Amino acid sequence: MIPTPYLLFLGDAPDQLAAKVAQGIKDWRPENAVGQFRLPGCGADVGLDDLTLEDAKAAGAQTLVIGVANRGGVISQAWKDVLIQALQMGFDIASGLHNLLRNENDLVAAARVAGRTLHDVRIPSVAYPIANGVKRTGKRCLAVGTDCSVGKMYTGLAMDAEMRERGMKSTFRPTGQTGILITGGGVPLDAVIADFMAGAVEYLTPDNDADHWDHIEGQGSLFHASYSGVTLALIHGGQPDAIVLAHEPTRTHMRGLPDYQLPALESLRDAALLMAHVVNPACRVVGVSVNTQHLTEEEASACLAEIETRMGMPTVDPFRHGAARLVDALEAV
Amino acid sequence: MIPTPYLLFLGDAPDQLAAKVAQGIKDWRPENAVGQFRLPGCGADVGLDDLTLEDAKAAGAQTLVIGVANRGGVISQAWKDVLIQALQMGFDIASGLHNLLRNENDLVAAARVAGRTLHDVRIPSVAYPIANGVKRTGKRCLAVGTDCSVGKMYTGLAMDAEMRERGMKSTFRPTGQTGILITGGGVPLDAVIADFMAGAVEYLTPDNDADHWDHIEGQGSLFHASYSGVTLALIHGGQPDAIVLAHEPTRTHMRGLPDYQLPALESLRDAALLMAHVVNPACRVVGVSVNTQHLTEEEASACLAEIETRMGMPTVDPFRHGAARLVDALEAV
Repeated sequence: MIPTPYLLFLGDAPDQLAAKVAQGIKDWRPENAVGQFRLPGCGADVGLDDLTLEDAKAAGAQTLVIGVANRGGVISQAWKDVLIQALQMGFDIASGLHNLLRNENDLVAAARVAGRTLHDVRIPSVAYPIANGVKRTGKRCLAVGTDCSVGKMYTGLAMDAEMRERGMKSTFRPTGQTGILITGGGVPLDAVIADFMAGAVEYLTPDNDADHWDHIEGQGSLFHASYSGVTLALIHGGQPDAIVLAHEPTRTHMRGLPDYQLPALESLRDAALLMAHVVNPACRVVGVSVNTQHLTEEEASACLAEIETRMGMPTVDPFRHGAARLVDALEAV
Repeated sequence: MIPTPYLLFLGDAPDQLAAKVAQGIKDWRPENAVGQFRLPGCGADVGLDDLTLEDAKAAGAQTLVIGVANRGGVISQAWKDVLIQALQMGFDIASGLHNLLRNENDLVAAARVAGRTLHDVRIPSVAYPIANGVKRTGKRCLAVGTDCSVGKMYTGLAMDAEMRERGMKSTFRPTGQTGILITGGGVPLDAVIADFMAGAVEYLTPDNDADHWDHIEGQGSLFHASYSGVTLALIHGGQPDAIVLAHEPTRTHMRGLPDYQLPALESLRDAALLMAHVVNPACRVVGVSVNTQHLTEEEASACLAEIETRMGMPTVDPFRHGAARLVDALEAV
């Protein structure tokens, strides 16, 4: 686990989109962030107080989280100056960048001297077991997508938030670097060794109270030629009781695969259930989560209504309209 | 690639079963082995000449292959003495053991001094790409199993041998350590990082002549809760034109998962085709390979006949009766 609360480092982010990790933390776990830190020329603002390292320390921050994508895969000297000062002041540093903190000699040296930890959340820090397939107590919901990057993480976070607001027992279980930084812990599944993928998911979602729901962050798609194995490991390691289908209706081809069309929601439903029933014969598909960000309000309503009629199950955009109807469906399981 | 030919090290193997890697090399690539090396008390014999290191060197051997499982995960001093001498004499060493050659300081030192290479075939030596899903030329056959360890490697090796005997263009493509040691190269798929699994399979089976068949070694099972993700990556990275179903009829539960039953061959056929059609809509299931080693000749015949009638496709035990009928089926594709 990454020590919380955080100071969110926005650096010299060119625009708001580059700071989506920081925005995710602010949106979903505001209690995890005491403020933001921006360099001159920063074009992003997640709406938290701008704090100096000293202010943040005084406010109790334990970790400086790099909440922004860097340019060209290089950690610049301007960043380095702040990061090294933060280590010297007693902050840990956490990052989901492709280029790792641990590969920067000056950061490693500064962390060692200061006795602090560099958290590269893309790299597993646990020797996960081989999955044993044993049925676990508690309930689990998994979002599976027609494609990558269609809103699976958002769906899980929104359902978790809605459940906790209702006083239900619920935990979001991250499987990617953004989710891990948001909550402070999880499994970076795409970086796990093949043999241990399903075991890592079992590890992530242990036995729990009978009325507790884990919302397991989905990854990839059963129909995505590059990443489908990761998705199947999530289904078989996750043993979901409920599946939510996730979809982005304006996608013209599978992400990164121009020759591949998205599957129909019906095909996704059938394939996901077929595979889920191997580990949990009681698993049901309970709803559809549609990412309508590229549609007008009118188009979105029409799209949701069409899918709801066709699929015969609650269909919502949890960002636009909340996750209440998806949670209603889970309560009925 | 591991330099061939080999000297097969049987060490102090307690029995023939412990030497199954060496036996596989002798059975499938006899041209890759100049002889065997046994320590006093060795209970295995793969039927090759017993050679000293000097004899093997004179016969042209390039690599000493550890063709035997070690006891308790420890490389004993008796083994070490031979391995170090072999390095000093100019052999490479290749191993599929769980405990790695590279973690043995004395072997690493001896290899460095002698300028030789330690090949730990469980560990990938290539930075595999992310799969791009682009259709490749040539044809591919993949064995998918109702369970792990039901004869998928054997099926692929037997079909490859039969094709080459017929003068057809054919290559066996190993995805596990035994297959890699047999042929001298391949991808240790279960040790690949999740995001790169399908890409590793694409790398393993590149473009080829239109009438060339790759026989891709299968792994795991779509229905095995621990390893199904690896299997799906094989299907989506492999883009098979033909699938052979592999089965072991006396198995009472999934290997290592006492609570899980094996799927019906019909379920396996349907699930494998559903997933294969994502990357190759023309893929067909062409036959069934049954491992009848625990059945009498009479029981085996009855079992094969029953499955052949039920599934409506050629059903053979390639070990007992050869792979000719499976290759006939491929020729018709």
